[in-house]
Amino acid sequence: MHAEDMAEDFPVVDLDSDAWEAAQLLAEHRLPGLVVTDPDGHPQAILPASQVVRFLVPGYVQDDPSLAGVLNESMADRIADKLSGKKVREVLSRETADPAVVKADDTIVEVAATMARLRCPLAAVMSGDRLVGVITASRLLQLALRHGK
Amino acid sequence: MHAEDMAEDFPVVDLDSDAWEAAQLLAEHRLPGLVVTDPDGHPQAILPASQVVRFLVPGYVQDDPSLAGVLNESMADRIADKLSGKKVREVLSRETADPAVVKADDTIVEVAATMARLRCPLAAVMSGDRLVGVITASRLLQLALRHGK
Repeated sequence: MHAEDMAEDFPVVDLDSDAWEAAQLLAEHRLPGLVVTDPDGHPQAILPASQVVRFLVPGYVQDDPSLAGVLNESMADRIADKLSGKKVREVLSRETADPAVVKADDTIVEVAATMARLRCPLAAVMSGDRLVGVITASRLLQLALRHGK
Repeated sequence: MHAEDMAEDFPVVDLDSDAWEAAQLLAEHRLPGLVVTDPDGHPQAILPASQVVRFLVPGYVQDDPSLAGVLNESMADRIADKLSGKKVREVLSRETADPAVVKADDTIVEVAATMARLRCPLAAVMSGDRLVGVITASRLLQLALRHGK
């Protein structure tokens, strides 16, 4: 089994995509994260849903969540205020890990090794210069266990 | 909206649960992670699917994924060999972040703040001593956006 056979479609955004639309994609598809590419379609980062949540909460409330009560409760307003007109690159954290990138003909063990090395919950599968899909860690476990029977 | 209304059922394991069964749960339900509790049901850690993948790959292959080819390709065999007879506590990484724990009557902003502070992709919701469910970061975004319309 090769990476291209394991890969699944996965919403992709680029660094200059609208941050509010990226939040919509995460929410609608209930995704733990999105693959972020450069304008040429090469994976540059993973945008975890948790990073978007983090971006919405002011630093002083992160430091002391008991202060959350002083904010207006509408998260919808916060999402609109903080994300409208912003680009995905502005929401990415500097600490964001490199995305795991694997080749279409990599084996399942190679995919696991790359994912493990980068501690990344998903791997982007490239066929040459083209992103053909994504393999999540749970998808990898599912395939590994299924093929063991 | 309070945390208890946002919470969803989510598979839970405890520190002494069978590691192979935990991998099955992650795979079958395609989950990014599991909540791990102590024997009293208090959340102690998150077990990310990526950590299970990491546990399956030897350190020297993580350091140099090109060595993956020297392993027998069967990930199913690796899963059986490395996880059988092991407990979840043995698979957890020492670097695993604390789980975000919120109270049933916390507001959505308080949940977001706690998740943001711990950089955790999900929050366990407690009603007193009882775990009533889990809120993922993408669920939080979904609810926040839906209630904005």
